Amino acid sequence: MNEQSSIGFICPVPDTDSGTIQLAHGGGGRLMDKLLNDMIRPIFDNEQLKRRHDGAVLHVDGPVAFTTDSYVVRPLFFPGGDIGSLAVNGTINDLAMCGARPQCLSVGMIIEDGFPMATLRRIALSMRGAADASQVRLVTGDTKVVDRGKADGIYINTTGLGSIVGAGPLEPARVRPGDIVVLSSDIGRHGIAVMAAREKFGFQSEIVSDCAPLFEPVLELLENDIEVHCLRDLTRGGLASAVVEIAETAGVSIVLHEHAIPVRSDISAACELLGLDPFHVANEGRFIALVAPSDADRAVGLLRQLSTCSSAAIIGSVEDGPSGRVSCYGPLGVARSVDMLSGEQLPRIC
Amino acid sequence: MNEQSSIGFICPVPDTDSGTIQLAHGGGGRLMDKLLNDMIRPIFDNEQLKRRHDGAVLHVDGPVAFTTDSYVVRPLFFPGGDIGSLAVNGTINDLAMCGARPQCLSVGMIIEDGFPMATLRRIALSMRGAADASQVRLVTGDTKVVDRGKADGIYINTTGLGSIVGAGPLEPARVRPGDIVVLSSDIGRHGIAVMAAREKFGFQSEIVSDCAPLFEPVLELLENDIEVHCLRDLTRGGLASAVVEIAETAGVSIVLHEHAIPVRSDISAACELLGLDPFHVANEGRFIALVAPSDADRAVGLLRQLSTCSSAAIIGSVEDGPSGRVSCYGPLGVARSVDMLSGEQLPRIC
Repeated sequence: MNEQSSIGFICPVPDTDSGTIQLAHGGGGRLMDKLLNDMIRPIFDNEQLKRRHDGAVLHVDGPVAFTTDSYVVRPLFFPGGDIGSLAVNGTINDLAMCGARPQCLSVGMIIEDGFPMATLRRIALSMRGAADASQVRLVTGDTKVVDRGKADGIYINTTGLGSIVGAGPLEPARVRPGDIVVLSSDIGRHGIAVMAAREKFGFQSEIVSDCAPLFEPVLELLENDIEVHCLRDLTRGGLASAVVEIAETAGVSIVLHEHAIPVRSDISAACELLGLDPFHVANEGRFIALVAPSDADRAVGLLRQLSTCSSAAIIGSVEDGPSGRVSCYGPLGVARSVDMLSGEQLPRIC
Repeated sequence: MNEQSSIGFICPVPDTDSGTIQLAHGGGGRLMDKLLNDMIRPIFDNEQLKRRHDGAVLHVDGPVAFTTDSYVVRPLFFPGGDIGSLAVNGTINDLAMCGARPQCLSVGMIIEDGFPMATLRRIALSMRGAADASQVRLVTGDTKVVDRGKADGIYINTTGLGSIVGAGPLEPARVRPGDIVVLSSDIGRHGIAVMAAREKFGFQSEIVSDCAPLFEPVLELLENDIEVHCLRDLTRGGLASAVVEIAETAGVSIVLHEHAIPVRSDISAACELLGLDPFHVANEGRFIALVAPSDADRAVGLLRQLSTCSSAAIIGSVEDGPSGRVSCYGPLGVARSVDMLSGEQLPRIC
């Protein structure tokens, strides 16, 4: 994929930021055109959008990863991020988990009638900032407006394209007994940060989301010839869902060691208070890598050099047991079974 | 892009179609896994989804078109289509307007808590049917659930990838004075069909949406070496917005001839009754092509052979006048100015 340009972060703030979104802003007429020209195109500034066509045309070579996510997080702003940066980083991370260098994103916004224009600008600028930080372009988009009461302010879909880096596919089918489970850093921050912001808990120290792009650590592993078999980010459903899904799809058992899994003390205190299991709490800047046993220590060493992965650790291994079984050894050496949540712990976390 | 397979239309209908969507179906846990395994993966059956990974990996060569749209149409079902077929055909058409053969789509669903499972299945089957009809694969997806009252049942985003067919780019920048405006068929059906379904008007004859895929007619033009400069489908904002946007972006004037623009008599009667201008009413299976003057008659002849384009016609031409000016000559030879709507005529039409 070419055409990637490193555009400076242009941030025009005209005086027209008062007012709110109206149904007509989604109508395909003059008001929508004005919204795009006054706010969206200047912020997401690039050649593709200037063409004012229905889609972007990109030059692509070789295998690409293609992934989509809609973001409905509530509240829209939380310590460490907002729906805009989350929508960009979340889809960047899904590409990274396919072993792909994120290249460009589409942005589909569904906005509620009456949504403040200034808030929309704040979110759009946050998207642009997150995209620039990962050298990703926002190349095509769509805006729909729905009636008052028919959305929670704004929902954002981002769909990403990235070019595959490295040789073999990264997928559950490649996982085999003996593989080591490496966790990129401490878990539980995003879910607790959003929960605290939503419910206005006054924790003594503010808990900040781990929302961050993950392509850099993935590239670090691949460029240093770590034999990675599968990657998975720990979003909705947390560490538990990711590990169980891999075990089920690969047809293997996975054993985890609780003492090895980094959870910050303020996060475990908050989880205890709220009756949550940190294994099920969502993260937005954490992943697991299933790697060949001979490369595991080196993988941890490489990750720990990066600020987003400072607590990287080996947390378990793949065994030749029943398909889909995940067990976790606790501090007393007793194993408990780990499963996906059957219900819903924290809705609308991303 | 390879890997395209023509999968048969498998339509498994298990007995588990009772019940409704719950918040936990969007939680990334066991219930969401069950929804995907019981309904979504069997319906959207393909190898990419079976991998159960965060994204699809595709093999792509050469230039691709990339486009996104969210669909919030109300009501979800209308004569001639539903939100599912609309979401597939709408994005297929945006790809076609870039001169691209639609290859694969991502699907992002935002579903309201309490949405009937049977309705979700009906929509998913409709998406699969529309995708099969155009040999397009639904390769990756995402499901989010929001609280009751926070969506109108379901919103769907589709993002498409297609490989560019033919040589030159199709975009407003290529439009020049002398070009002829060819309309693919009669206008106004989709908007009136949705409006009638929403407001439960009892028109004597049922008006059916024109919702249809448009790649076949585009390919017909390109394969027969019609010198096409720009294509645009006539969705939100209708014919008027499409023509004005092209005139503004290309920096030209466009003259239309009202008597040449096909509008069915039941549509013009409905428009008159409802105080709507058919130029502004949305279509979901109609487009304009701006073509070289020497190819215009041949283009119309080629299009008329196709069932979706039976009323194709030359409706105007590009002039060397002020940038963005669009005028339309009426039956008495008097010209009126055509502009995008400033307000909103029919909200949530797609």
